[in-house]
Amino acid sequence: MSRPVIAFQGEPGAYSEAAAYEYFGAEIDTLPCANFEKIFDAVNEGTATQGMIPIENSLAGSIHRNYDLLLRHDLFITGEYHLRVSHCLMALPGVELGDVTRVLSHPQALAQCEGSLAELGVERVAEYDTAGSARLIKTRDDRSAAALASKHAASVYALNILKENMEDNPANFTRFLAISKAENGGEASPDTDYKTSIVFSLENQPGILFKALSVFALREIDLTKIESRPLTGKPWEYYFYIDFAGHIQTKVCRAALNHLDEIAPFIRVLGSYKRHVNLNVTN
Amino acid sequence: MSRPVIAFQGEPGAYSEAAAYEYFGAEIDTLPCANFEKIFDAVNEGTATQGMIPIENSLAGSIHRNYDLLLRHDLFITGEYHLRVSHCLMALPGVELGDVTRVLSHPQALAQCEGSLAELGVERVAEYDTAGSARLIKTRDDRSAAALASKHAASVYALNILKENMEDNPANFTRFLAISKAENGGEASPDTDYKTSIVFSLENQPGILFKALSVFALREIDLTKIESRPLTGKPWEYYFYIDFAGHIQTKVCRAALNHLDEIAPFIRVLGSYKRHVNLNVTN
Repeated sequence: MSRPVIAFQGEPGAYSEAAAYEYFGAEIDTLPCANFEKIFDAVNEGTATQGMIPIENSLAGSIHRNYDLLLRHDLFITGEYHLRVSHCLMALPGVELGDVTRVLSHPQALAQCEGSLAELGVERVAEYDTAGSARLIKTRDDRSAAALASKHAASVYALNILKENMEDNPANFTRFLAISKAENGGEASPDTDYKTSIVFSLENQPGILFKALSVFALREIDLTKIESRPLTGKPWEYYFYIDFAGHIQTKVCRAALNHLDEIAPFIRVLGSYKRHVNLNVTN
Repeated sequence: MSRPVIAFQGEPGAYSEAAAYEYFGAEIDTLPCANFEKIFDAVNEGTATQGMIPIENSLAGSIHRNYDLLLRHDLFITGEYHLRVSHCLMALPGVELGDVTRVLSHPQALAQCEGSLAELGVERVAEYDTAGSARLIKTRDDRSAAALASKHAASVYALNILKENMEDNPANFTRFLAISKAENGGEASPDTDYKTSIVFSLENQPGILFKALSVFALREIDLTKIESRPLTGKPWEYYFYIDFAGHIQTKVCRAALNHLDEIAPFIRVLGSYKRHVNLNVTN
């Protein structure tokens, strides 16, 4: 049997690839994609079995592009994974911390490690990608530079980790979604925590969002996330994306969605999946 | 009396500068800033009288960075303006449409004019800025290229408009906010439409967002926008930004905020200001 192929955005060694391995396990092949759209295409066309997309970072916020792509494509969310984003400082084998004069990484990673880098007193060089910076050091055989990237990138490019946990704020997590052509099958197990993601639109009426949220509140269904995105062609009207606790097959969630159907002109269920609760912030 | 100085992000000729002139009138001086943060700094330090920041585009969505900056700085929102974003194709005087082989602009503007550009059969060249593309054509004296930018940019760089309304979707508006060190003074006039913008946080409790919105719905106060941003250090907790109809000085809005104060550990009023309702989508 062939191994599942998981599409991700970025270069080998990217945080997205690390998330794919942590979520799906070691027995997968990965497919690097130049942008998010290509992940959706690969899954649609069957080049990839599933995709792994970042949807939100606990410091930087939602990745809105992926909300838009979820709406545009007919794929399902089949799982979620919270990756602890921990930047490692890595260099060629034999290079020591004192040899490093420049640190390469994506501008966001450089910003997240501002304090640690100031202590080291090194020059910061902005690159297009964290894993790409690790690759550059390898291909240039650059012995005066280090990269800020994932532990996984160090192993992909055979670099030596000089320092772990370089980030100033350890509460740095990215929530990833596994996306697939097929919905999660089977019955909802009563002893498992589930989440459901939906998207819906609302007519522009006073109090309409409150009414929409009431279908969950009246049934004590917990909302874990709300996001809004523009409805193209109707300025200042929105699509609302909501994640709530519970499986779509349960009676209470079905009732809530039937109720929402009376209020919202458009609803789509993006998927029900196991909740990932591991959020260990300690370094 | 010296003229007010309005800080905006971008180069002379930017859509933000056009919005400043349309909102404040011709009797202003403008201060170009390299990034949004510098607008807030200029207003804080008094280098600028007010700032003009884009907060949302009807096709691309919110400019989240400016939501974060509103929270970080102690400035007030004093007004709003909806700018119709209409891309003009412009070239050096004497250059005709048939002479143009390349079109320069910001990638988002190029994407928004995809249909019109395909009809012209020209090469697209991505630049950092719409107004910057107009400036490049001027400084390079480039007679084979045109820029996609605002009508205002054509006048700033003395370029000739070859074609107006190049955008494929005319429902393209950017909402701008005027920001200032001082709150809008005076009494709320009973015959004026106002909006109020607030930001608040919520404890992570089931149904808490529903409860927060109930303070408006129970008083028939219309919400025009809701946005959430990450609460740094608390993964998957949020600041909520809400715009609602009404002036903070009215009894009903005061009551709603007093009620919200029972629910939200943190609330800040960003400002009450006149509502701008001009949304003429026709080309």
